[in-house]
Amino acid sequence: MEQIENVLAQRYASKSMKEIWSPEGRILMERDLWISVLKAQKELGLPIDDDVISSYEKVKNHVDLQSIKNREKLTRHDVKSRIEEFCDLAGYEHIHKGMTSRDLTENVEQLQVYKSLQLIRSKAVTALIRLSEKADFYRSQIITARTHNVAAQPTTFGKRIAMFGQELLLAIENLDRVVENYPVRGIKGAVGTQLDQLTLFDGDTAKANELEEKIIRHLGISRSINAVGQVYPRSLDHQVVSALYQLSSGPSSFAKTLRIMAGNETASEGFAKGQVGSSAMPHKMNSRSCERVNGFHLIINGYMNMVAGLAGDQWNEGDVSCSVVRRVALPDSFYAIDGLFETFLTILEQMTTFPAVIDRENTYYFPFLSTTTIMMEAVKKGAGRETAHEAIKEHAVATVHDLRHGKISTNNLLDRLAADKRLGLSMEEMKAILSRGEELVGAASAQIDIFRSEAESWKNKFPEAADYNPGDIL
Amino acid sequence: MEQIENVLAQRYASKSMKEIWSPEGRILMERDLWISVLKAQKELGLPIDDDVISSYEKVKNHVDLQSIKNREKLTRHDVKSRIEEFCDLAGYEHIHKGMTSRDLTENVEQLQVYKSLQLIRSKAVTALIRLSEKADFYRSQIITARTHNVAAQPTTFGKRIAMFGQELLLAIENLDRVVENYPVRGIKGAVGTQLDQLTLFDGDTAKANELEEKIIRHLGISRSINAVGQVYPRSLDHQVVSALYQLSSGPSSFAKTLRIMAGNETASEGFAKGQVGSSAMPHKMNSRSCERVNGFHLIINGYMNMVAGLAGDQWNEGDVSCSVVRRVALPDSFYAIDGLFETFLTILEQMTTFPAVIDRENTYYFPFLSTTTIMMEAVKKGAGRETAHEAIKEHAVATVHDLRHGKISTNNLLDRLAADKRLGLSMEEMKAILSRGEELVGAASAQIDIFRSEAESWKNKFPEAADYNPGDIL
Amino acid sequence: MEQIENVLAQRYASKSMKEIWSPEGRILMERDLWISVLKAQKELGLPIDDDVISSYEKVKNHVDLQSIKNREKLTRHDVKSRIEEFCDLAGYEHIHKGMTSRDLTENVEQLQVYKSLQLIRSKAVTALIRLSEKADFYRSQIITARTHNVAAQPTTFGKRIAMFGQELLLAIENLDRVVENYPVRGIKGAVGTQLDQLTLFDGDTAKANELEEKIIRHLGISRSINAVGQVYPRSLDHQVVSALYQLSSGPSSFAKTLRIMAGNETASEGFAKGQVGSSAMPHKMNSRSCERVNGFHLIINGYMNMVAGLAGDQWNEGDVSCSVVRRVALPDSFYAIDGLFETFLTILEQMTTFPAVIDRENTYYFPFLSTTTIMMEAVKKGAGRETAHEAIKEHAVATVHDLRHGKISTNNLLDRLAADKRLGLSMEEMKAILSRGEELVGAASAQIDIFRSEAESWKNKFPEAADYNPGDIL
Amino acid sequence: MEQIENVLAQRYASKSMKEIWSPEGRILMERDLWISVLKAQKELGLPIDDDVISSYEKVKNHVDLQSIKNREKLTRHDVKSRIEEFCDLAGYEHIHKGMTSRDLTENVEQLQVYKSLQLIRSKAVTALIRLSEKADFYRSQIITARTHNVAAQPTTFGKRIAMFGQELLLAIENLDRVVENYPVRGIKGAVGTQLDQLTLFDGDTAKANELEEKIIRHLGISRSINAVGQVYPRSLDHQVVSALYQLSSGPSSFAKTLRIMAGNETASEGFAKGQVGSSAMPHKMNSRSCERVNGFHLIINGYMNMVAGLAGDQWNEGDVSCSVVRRVALPDSFYAIDGLFETFLTILEQMTTFPAVIDRENTYYFPFLSTTTIMMEAVKKGAGRETAHEAIKEHAVATVHDLRHGKISTNNLLDRLAADKRLGLSMEEMKAILSRGEELVGAASAQIDIFRSEAESWKNKFPEAADYNPGDIL
Repeated sequence: MEQIENVLAQRYASKSMKEIWSPEGRILMERDLWISVLKAQKELGLPIDDDVISSYEKVKNHVDLQSIKNREKLTRHDVKSRIEEFCDLAGYEHIHKGMTSRDLTENVEQLQVYKSLQLIRSKAVTALIRLSEKADFYRSQIITARTHNVAAQPTTFGKRIAMFGQELLLAIENLDRVVENYPVRGIKGAVGTQLDQLTLFDGDTAKANELEEKIIRHLGISRSINAVGQVYPRSLDHQVVSALYQLSSGPSSFAKTLRIMAGNETASEGFAKGQVGSSAMPHKMNSRSCERVNGFHLIINGYMNMVAGLAGDQWNEGDVSCSVVRRVALPDSFYAIDGLFETFLTILEQMTTFPAVIDRENTYYFPFLSTTTIMMEAVKKGAGRETAHEAIKEHAVATVHDLRHGKISTNNLLDRLAADKRLGLSMEEMKAILSRGEELVGAASAQIDIFRSEAESWKNKFPEAADYNPGDIL
Repeated sequence: MEQIENVLAQRYASKSMKEIWSPEGRILMERDLWISVLKAQKELGLPIDDDVISSYEKVKNHVDLQSIKNREKLTRHDVKSRIEEFCDLAGYEHIHKGMTSRDLTENVEQLQVYKSLQLIRSKAVTALIRLSEKADFYRSQIITARTHNVAAQPTTFGKRIAMFGQELLLAIENLDRVVENYPVRGIKGAVGTQLDQLTLFDGDTAKANELEEKIIRHLGISRSINAVGQVYPRSLDHQVVSALYQLSSGPSSFAKTLRIMAGNETASEGFAKGQVGSSAMPHKMNSRSCERVNGFHLIINGYMNMVAGLAGDQWNEGDVSCSVVRRVALPDSFYAIDGLFETFLTILEQMTTFPAVIDRENTYYFPFLSTTTIMMEAVKKGAGRETAHEAIKEHAVATVHDLRHGKISTNNLLDRLAADKRLGLSMEEMKAILSRGEELVGAASAQIDIFRSEAESWKNKFPEAADYNPGDIL
Repeated sequence: MEQIENVLAQRYASKSMKEIWSPEGRILMERDLWISVLKAQKELGLPIDDDVISSYEKVKNHVDLQSIKNREKLTRHDVKSRIEEFCDLAGYEHIHKGMTSRDLTENVEQLQVYKSLQLIRSKAVTALIRLSEKADFYRSQIITARTHNVAAQPTTFGKRIAMFGQELLLAIENLDRVVENYPVRGIKGAVGTQLDQLTLFDGDTAKANELEEKIIRHLGISRSINAVGQVYPRSLDHQVVSALYQLSSGPSSFAKTLRIMAGNETASEGFAKGQVGSSAMPHKMNSRSCERVNGFHLIINGYMNMVAGLAGDQWNEGDVSCSVVRRVALPDSFYAIDGLFETFLTILEQMTTFPAVIDRENTYYFPFLSTTTIMMEAVKKGAGRETAHEAIKEHAVATVHDLRHGKISTNNLLDRLAADKRLGLSMEEMKAILSRGEELVGAASAQIDIFRSEAESWKNKFPEAADYNPGDIL
Repeated sequence: MEQIENVLAQRYASKSMKEIWSPEGRILMERDLWISVLKAQKELGLPIDDDVISSYEKVKNHVDLQSIKNREKLTRHDVKSRIEEFCDLAGYEHIHKGMTSRDLTENVEQLQVYKSLQLIRSKAVTALIRLSEKADFYRSQIITARTHNVAAQPTTFGKRIAMFGQELLLAIENLDRVVENYPVRGIKGAVGTQLDQLTLFDGDTAKANELEEKIIRHLGISRSINAVGQVYPRSLDHQVVSALYQLSSGPSSFAKTLRIMAGNETASEGFAKGQVGSSAMPHKMNSRSCERVNGFHLIINGYMNMVAGLAGDQWNEGDVSCSVVRRVALPDSFYAIDGLFETFLTILEQMTTFPAVIDRENTYYFPFLSTTTIMMEAVKKGAGRETAHEAIKEHAVATVHDLRHGKISTNNLLDRLAADKRLGLSMEEMKAILSRGEELVGAASAQIDIFRSEAESWKNKFPEAADYNPGDIL
């Protein structure tokens, strides 16, 4: 039977993300770490022949996963099998000295997390930039804003996009803080006391610390964690996946809204060339990609749940009941968020609006959408707020009723309001309110400008993000 | 780059489970369904040449995943690409008539779920049988029962095993009910009204129903769901994964307890031949498999969370925002529960107890463990319950204190109690209580007998379960 | 400061549910259990004066929560304080003999769960009956069925309601099985061996078993669990809350769909007398109750998560790390599901449709909705399925395009199809298809009939459910 | 029937936390906000009489919850009822001008969150300080470090405490960033465009912005969110509760470890005066408070799950399906974390160790715990790493075996190792290794020092935290 593939990785994730988490990629990181420890130990005075180091370096790229798997079947210990494989290849038994399994695996896994976080930060900034461009593009497209899914007031489609962009922006700020403060466990020994490295260096604390610093520099991470046990605190994994979940929320809300707009035919996520809507109903333009974004969001929630189950469950200096969970939840949550951004960026490229339908909707709702403004004007002219509210409510409800039951075919709310003394507004005053046009979208444009300038500042911080284009999606 | 594998499937799941969910396996099931629909349609009078059916049958086993993937890249529609592939191979365009995508995929996916549930039910029964054998085997091994992780009363290790077996038993009862009542969506068309099949049969309802019944018989499932939309209710998936989670709870509690016992050296999950405890601390016998069982339990919780997010979120006649979620959560939760039972059965095979250590513990705690019985006897002889409680508490706390602070080296609680008038019990009476030995474990043996007979009745229902042996685990 | 109230109980739950979980209600259940144990012990030969029992019975209803709270502050043990309170009131120290805390609390809490399950089953059946009535009422109201939130085929509103009712029906079946098979822990002593009761009865197993049976009969539950520890398996709580979650899924999907329909103005959850839509936008008819149903669904998911965290985490014979979790999650998940049904039943009472708007929608989509049927007819007349699919897709996409971009104002898809030779259908044939009217909703009515008869059989099982009316909701 | 109380608030939370979330507290915050808006509007030129403002101020503290509840029953709109109540009391209809419900509720709820976060940050710092004091106090108490719950190497109890403190420290850093960057929605109107305030100010953008800034200053929060809809992004709530969960992880792991230590009798959470262990087994010292800490941790996970379900589910400009969820999950997650810290601080006050038992354990494991060091020394003397590993493993496993099966009564591993030529170490050299004593705990003390200085810097930032003492707990 063929190997069962990881669906998230193979169907949805990008090559860059897969490289970080592939078995080969990981083994290369591990071997790099071992060699870097060997070199540091030599620099700090341990007697290690140059020949030893070069022997390991020579075979470093020779990765034979099957051979390692065979060893593990015997030893039931994954690290042990990888040590043996590397040593047999090199012809020496020098790596992993003064190290315990977790000195290797914790640091390598944290490096995978760290590199993945950087990759995702960059893609999220790309999405932010695209959203700010779209917000600008649709700046003047007035639409019917909805609360409780019911027409509420006018806004612009640009503002709506900026609103979801704003959510992403707040999540990027958080993610960036997570990345910049991410600490690594370091070389701390079997129970976190650095005993084995200290023993190697005859109790010389300065040397043990220097070794750790060299390794952290090698990893490219800015800080290590001081007092740890066998493992780094699992609540760090929670912090990471939780930040991914926050990051997926803005795109997810955007996708839900686009699915609703598609239902009203005011917008669509668009079609790629050759795409088929449905085998049985060919005219349909289904929001498949938006639905998928919502699916990824749920998936990340599930992985967050797995990882949360590990936090706060450390017994003594630590176990590896977390091992199988992290093997699944860490790579897979990164594949999912990666797939989410690949999909979301594609939507942002291909989406489209239908202005004719939008206008039809606006015309239908316009008089209703202006009631708040009309009430404000009535209040300014002296009506009590609650009285005006009551009067408008009466007429609005009656108009809605007549429209919904086919008694009238056009919205005549304004006529009714003009005739009501409680408001004290003439038809002319009323029409003046409605004719103010763009005013009714309030500060929409100003908010878009602010959003754009904030997106701009992230673009400046991560210039490579501006040019990123998603790969083809299924 | 090599394909990224599904870790749960490749490292932990059994061949039988992988066959159900593998891409090839699924495509074979789909083609079977299509052919079975063709045959049923022919039987019900549609003009379909024998040659058509045999052409499809001839190429049925020719599965070229890459070719299908290439088609999907163009159409962005997975079912469409599989229809085209099969039709091109057969040289006809006859399958999928009067069917919509979901007529195919819903039924096939439910069949995968159903077959997986049956497989897991069988393995769970195997575990139940093994637990009942172990309960019997350790029937006379008296141990110190603990509540709040503190010594409480005597019990037997056999009873402790039966207790966790009892939890599994309740979960198997539930799972069995889920399997036996599992309903399938059937051939209901694009929005669940059977319109397309009715159109094919010129509105002949009887024929449409007969067609569905033929297909359900083909699937081997006992009932179909009457009123559905595009999809079957997603809360059914929740019911399934939730039953798996319940099923994993007994083994998980057992595994936690064995990890705690390993910490006290009263028991161990055992070692397989050649296994290494830890690269740096070779004497250690780590409870790796038990930890893994606990890990799988958390993993299933996460998938349950994903699937729960789909339930109650059906818009109108249904979407496929669930698609990517179910692609991940359904197979992976089955791989996880399968891996859990493979691991758990291995533990049950290899586990061992250390009677010498158990006896040391019993001796230390025995006088404390008997206090409830002593109190009962004092009450029977006339002491007030609260008074006796107070007296015993005083002496017990003092004895504990002296032992913990090194003032005494053996437990002298009995001497203290005999000297206290409030209890009215002589040293002889006290010793008589303790010497009753096996009585102190109360109904432990009787409960084991009942548990065994219940396990026996499941064994009779699923005789193949008795002989199952887990594969080698990593 | 005033006491902080339980929001779910006080704002949303019914009186009947609150009575089950109120502190007074619970204390009464406990005292009943103690007295029933006393009586059973007396019947089985223990020397207990009638005066003792009557003294306890006399003060049974004197519940002083503050006094108990004061005692608990001192003892830090909740059961102990309730024993002391009851004994001080009665002037005896006879209750709780041969019992441990959990003999009391496990059984009483399971009784609360059991009574709550029965109450909820009854309300769910009420909802099922109401749904079946609505399905019947809207049997002929043709609407535009949507998949992916996009118009797909015709259906009826009655069928749509039956579809969500069907999901509820499956969940009721499951809940009913949970109730009917619910097992109670019984009087099993401190570690589950029945030691203390056996001691009281001088090792007479028959008497200990008879005592347990008497108590179970007192509780009204059909079976007890054989081999337990200090506590019953917590995966039973998971099973219960998971069944509640499944039960909330149908109503939740219905509520989401009604929110979407409200956005299209095809239906509304309705307004109660005096209700205000929004303080600032008085014309709005927000789907507040539907939103709340969706909120309750999420809330139950959260409690399910809490309870799931307890399952599979039993150490040895059990702890009470679960105590604070169950204190919150058990009552609150029942308050939530109770509030959900109160709200849902109110929606079913007050909801309304807007046929004028529905017809407008149907007219717009009708030609598109018939494409599947047209394709089937074309296939029957000899066109290849894929060819017909392609032709219809071309024209449908073009028509959609022209409508969305304002190039045409009415749907002229039929003209285009009639002109296309690939289909081989004349305008007359096409019109005949569309004029078949009710046929296009296929088996909708037949499915409603089946659904109704299934609802009827539940009504016969629980006749009191038919008459239940929800209380006023906020 | 008596009101059902909120168990988390009434049993576990502190007065300060309850004040923030009590109904009265909330209404006072709302009225303050309304008055502050009135004042700002007046300052910015709207014609509002001083008399109006003073009339509202005069009745501000008159909070009649029942009257408000009665109004809500009629209007089904909570904000509306509170507006009417306040206006009737004051005799004016001036508040809430240019505001929509969410202008009030979003800001007030965010203020509750913000104040709660500050309170919790302070308590977490208190816990950090206490942990650092305990770490210092137990600096020289050598214990047997455990990984996989099995003896691994020596460490100190001080280091173990510092390790859990370290996890808390990382969580405090994160929480502090959440607090310092917490943004508030501001006065943005019904759909986020500020339309109504702009209308009030005749389109004067500067005035609308100034009004918002005044209000934010009133709230004491540093920034507002630029582009929002009806509501602020719900992923912010996720960020908050997720930070609480991270915060609870260190205490939860500490509590689990103390429960395990209690099982070995090496430590105990201690007893408060008058506490009773168990009604039936009076000698037991159960880790009730530690279990409760673990329970709170699970509870917060459940609320996190609820809140996560809201993130990424915003439809258009927003709904209130979140309303009932946030009413429950926001206060209750803060009550839970508050209760967790009250309990945890009590544990830190009352906990105790049993040095006599610890020493017994150390003596038993010491030879095993030194194997890594012995292996390192052997390697330094020329043995191959894998060879030494193999030799030590052989002897260690044999010694363990003999101890566990009663063949020897004292640990004689050293004799066996000295006799093995593969290691090349004499008995003298071996004893020298073990006699190095404190060296075997490696950098434990140095790590405690670093931890202490980090705790110190947080103490300097929040000096009030140093003096906080938890209230009495149940």
